Amino acid sequence: MKSPVFCVCFCVFVLGAAQLFTDQDPKQAMRCNVTGQWKSEQGSMLQLTSTGPEVRGVYHTAVETAFGASGHNRESKVVGVVGDGPQPAVAFSVLWAKGSCSSWVGQCFLLPGGGQVLKTLWMLRSVAESSLDNWESTRLGEDQFIFVGNVGSADGH
Amino acid sequence: MKSPVFCVCFCVFVLGAAQLFTDQDPKQAMRCNVTGQWKSEQGSMLQLTSTGPEVRGVYHTAVETAFGASGHNRESKVVGVVGDGPQPAVAFSVLWAKGSCSSWVGQCFLLPGGGQVLKTLWMLRSVAESSLDNWESTRLGEDQFIFVGNVGSADGH
Amino acid sequence: MKSPVFCVCFCVFVLGAAQLFTDQDPKQAMRCNVTGQWKSEQGSMLQLTSTGPEVRGVYHTAVETAFGASGHNRESKVVGVVGDGPQPAVAFSVLWAKGSCSSWVGQCFLLPGGGQVLKTLWMLRSVAESSLDNWESTRLGEDQFIFVGNVGSADGH
Amino acid sequence: MKSPVFCVCFCVFVLGAAQLFTDQDPKQAMRCNVTGQWKSEQGSMLQLTSTGPEVRGVYHTAVETAFGASGHNRESKVVGVVGDGPQPAVAFSVLWAKGSCSSWVGQCFLLPGGGQVLKTLWMLRSVAESSLDNWESTRLGEDQFIFVGNVGSADGH
Repeated sequence: MKSPVFCVCFCVFVLGAAQLFTDQDPKQAMRCNVTGQWKSEQGSMLQLTSTGPEVRGVYHTAVETAFGASGHNRESKVVGVVGDGPQPAVAFSVLWAKGSCSSWVGQCFLLPGGGQVLKTLWMLRSVAESSLDNWESTRLGEDQFIFVGNVGSADGH
Repeated sequence: MKSPVFCVCFCVFVLGAAQLFTDQDPKQAMRCNVTGQWKSEQGSMLQLTSTGPEVRGVYHTAVETAFGASGHNRESKVVGVVGDGPQPAVAFSVLWAKGSCSSWVGQCFLLPGGGQVLKTLWMLRSVAESSLDNWESTRLGEDQFIFVGNVGSADGH
Repeated sequence: MKSPVFCVCFCVFVLGAAQLFTDQDPKQAMRCNVTGQWKSEQGSMLQLTSTGPEVRGVYHTAVETAFGASGHNRESKVVGVVGDGPQPAVAFSVLWAKGSCSSWVGQCFLLPGGGQVLKTLWMLRSVAESSLDNWESTRLGEDQFIFVGNVGSADGH
Repeated sequence: MKSPVFCVCFCVFVLGAAQLFTDQDPKQAMRCNVTGQWKSEQGSMLQLTSTGPEVRGVYHTAVETAFGASGHNRESKVVGVVGDGPQPAVAFSVLWAKGSCSSWVGQCFLLPGGGQVLKTLWMLRSVAESSLDNWESTRLGEDQFIFVGNVGSADGH
């Protein structure tokens, strides 16, 4: 038969573990928040702010298919949508300076250590001269963004 | 030296050609305008309004991956971007009721007969329970939308 | 109680219905067979022969991303796999002359009128100079192939 | 006129540079060879053997969309194509036990440290009951495979 001592020890252990978990910033642990600064594996910077189901922000790309394709400062506005669960799905689009545009779809995941990652797939649509060139005008790829800070802190404020 | 006769002939020719071109409904011929009602091959309805580089609207889907996935009335808001050329590229996103979201990228093409078509590819992102299920959470497909009328006329009849 | 007359009538009806069904070319109606000649909406020709779960054949493309990219006669060997159901899924790959390669995945569907269609999505992989260019090296699109005849008849025999 | 001293110096330099390059395992440095055992980030194992422009092998998947979908031992044959440059593009397909099939396209890259990586994007095609369900039957994702050994050594231990 199990002794009461065991039960007490077990309860203390459980409470302690719960406490430890709570200490790791519970708000962070509860919900993956897309608002803030994100950095892709290639060095592109994505700044997002969510307002209800909508996201807005700025994309600063590290790569271009051709010089100048992404425009002045390689920056463009971001507009999209985000769900409201603990690890919400997200989709957003960007219009580049020369008229091509990109969309990303993905999901915000909480990392075991308390950080956040945005795992996405994207399509990049170039402007075809005519519908005959439509077939070759969409590129496809993968981007993983790591959360690097709140929008405020990234600005230096 | 070129004779005045040549100059006059040339001017007449140019004016005549411009006139011919004008007769083919110049507004329609000049630019593929995404504002209006679009219908996909599967019967989904897409209503778009562009304001500068941004598009907004409503998507009424004809299909769902599971009953109720796309929500009340199967309708959701659309938000995205559009270029400004004669046949602009476009990208837009939708958040569905159960938290999944879709993005389309494509281009607005003028049809020889005066109509418009939106040739797109899309990704549909489902919500993965954890990052272990991330790999299987993105679907891919193709949609072609035919322009079926202006927003006003679609609403009023 | 049901009368024997009813039973006999029912049996005759069932046999008659089966006969009607058989009259509609049963082999065609039973299984979508990928072996034969297929033509894409863009005019590319795909000749396939399935042997068990494998398919082989020849792809003659109507389009190229750059002149000569698809090689001599714009033709390349096809190798892939096919399932064994009535409307099997299929996946196949082609290596182009300049080292890029394509894969299609899709499914063979029987059309109500007795024909066959292969609905596919494809990826086209170009050779990146280095892994830094990897992100922009995959294109994406859609192809629909209509069955245009058996391999033998396409050859003129 | 150039002095003989210059010529000698130049030759020594060239030979020395060639020697340096040779020291970095020339076979490895010259060509990314797809033949061998590869492991994906998710733990799937891919065994490939190239014969000219064709590749064959076995895929042992670590993940399934539904229990049993990938079949006995979760293993299936691989068939595809590979280019012949130093860092060749590759495309290959697999038929799963329940009739779905996958294709990967990607490229074999040499890593600075002497290893090899296969960067790929894939599509997974499920069997749709009818063409009405075709739209939702293709999944999309990304796989990165690290070279883990030659086929022989993988078999022998």
